Amino acid sequence: MCELLGMSANVPTDICFSFAGLVPRGGGTGPHRDGWGIAFYEGPGLRAFHDPLPSADSRIAELLVSYPIKSRVVISHIRQANVGDVCLANTHPFSRELWGRVWCYAHNGQLEKEIFDWPLSYYHPVGTTDSEYAFCWLLDQIRKEFPDGPPDDADELSALIHQCCEKLRALGVYNLLLSESSRLFCFCTTKLSWITRRAPFGEARLKDSDMSVDFGAETTPNDVVTVIATEPLTDNERWESLNSGEMVVFKDGEVEWRARAEQAQK
Amino acid sequence: MCELLGMSANVPTDICFSFAGLVPRGGGTGPHRDGWGIAFYEGPGLRAFHDPLPSADSRIAELLVSYPIKSRVVISHIRQANVGDVCLANTHPFSRELWGRVWCYAHNGQLEKEIFDWPLSYYHPVGTTDSEYAFCWLLDQIRKEFPDGPPDDADELSALIHQCCEKLRALGVYNLLLSESSRLFCFCTTKLSWITRRAPFGEARLKDSDMSVDFGAETTPNDVVTVIATEPLTDNERWESLNSGEMVVFKDGEVEWRARAEQAQK
Repeated sequence: MCELLGMSANVPTDICFSFAGLVPRGGGTGPHRDGWGIAFYEGPGLRAFHDPLPSADSRIAELLVSYPIKSRVVISHIRQANVGDVCLANTHPFSRELWGRVWCYAHNGQLEKEIFDWPLSYYHPVGTTDSEYAFCWLLDQIRKEFPDGPPDDADELSALIHQCCEKLRALGVYNLLLSESSRLFCFCTTKLSWITRRAPFGEARLKDSDMSVDFGAETTPNDVVTVIATEPLTDNERWESLNSGEMVVFKDGEVEWRARAEQAQK
Repeated sequence: MCELLGMSANVPTDICFSFAGLVPRGGGTGPHRDGWGIAFYEGPGLRAFHDPLPSADSRIAELLVSYPIKSRVVISHIRQANVGDVCLANTHPFSRELWGRVWCYAHNGQLEKEIFDWPLSYYHPVGTTDSEYAFCWLLDQIRKEFPDGPPDDADELSALIHQCCEKLRALGVYNLLLSESSRLFCFCTTKLSWITRRAPFGEARLKDSDMSVDFGAETTPNDVVTVIATEPLTDNERWESLNSGEMVVFKDGEVEWRARAEQAQK
């Protein structure tokens, strides 16, 4: 299993605090020693940092904990390898372009080998993980259904992604964070929890390191910031957890779309 | 105009020294204040760092100058914006996947607006630069000609890329660095110079900063390392320059393919 971390916000926000809570899990307090990555959207652009080294030992991670990159959508992943060697090509998050947008993706879990038999059309994996293969398959489905651009009704896109995730969940554990720059699509098989912070902001205390932050001093009254992670990062706030088969789509920090496991899947 | 820097080597090599020579040109000794990026291949994987800030002021650039990431193919770019805002989506190098390989691209120069009328099929720009548009068009041509994978004869691929570059050169200034992870394709319209370092290695002294390196102490006798840049980075070595319309393809630090301007272009 791996650790996922995502953020959706209505203003460019730095994720240093939450990232500081995740980093020790990569070889420090957690067993996930097989590389890590984090990707920040800034408008339509995506800035990604990858390191096949454990995050707890990484000089790049050390820089990012103290260097506030402000973003409205962030996806991060710390890896414990199960399928695929430990190398850069197998380090999440992965990205591909569709419709002139950069899609970014991180997966936690493991799928049956059968996934590698699913046919691919437009997108092909660079590395050898089940995760990246599933990403290529997922983007293929979106591109086939909406070849010329996103549907006018964003709910149609969310529903399609949910259907695809349910097919992937039938092959094993599929916890997903995905974005096309404005939305954060989150699908759960086993573990994903989120918290939405808004005024009045309080203090939050990290579970994994001796650190707390007073968000009241860092924010304006209109800020809405949602953080989603494999497990709650703080121990003095109430996080909401997703059920198996459930998808939540965040936009500007708010829930835009939500659906429980599909009937067909049960 | 912008500054390009590329490397091709037969063993994983760090580019800290050359990058240290480039960084001051981004807002220090040079006028290129509009962001920078560098991408390192590690096997098939690509690790890219982008910053819309001037490299001379960038904390990420500061880290990379002292953090040796070893790679056999590197592409770097420091930007002086002409077309497109200064923002992350317009920051080189750009990358796209084709045949399960990550292609990485940086362009220096400017193309006539007509480029934006050239039809695109598979790849679409995320930002607003002529450079990224031309990259999408170029990869489209490669994908159309070789839809199922690279040709058995690598020279056919080099020749196609050269033809495409000649078409782009007809629209203005097109200096290019491009890679698919093993080869470094370099095309010149105005300025590109390279040097191949091999045993016996000597000392090199950077033009733009008070720094020199003794490569003899850093290398083994079998290392072959080619560095290519907009202008020579050192002032005590002999660099070779490309002519307008000329393309050189490096693999493992050696020239694999080379062609002068096409007859048709003159």
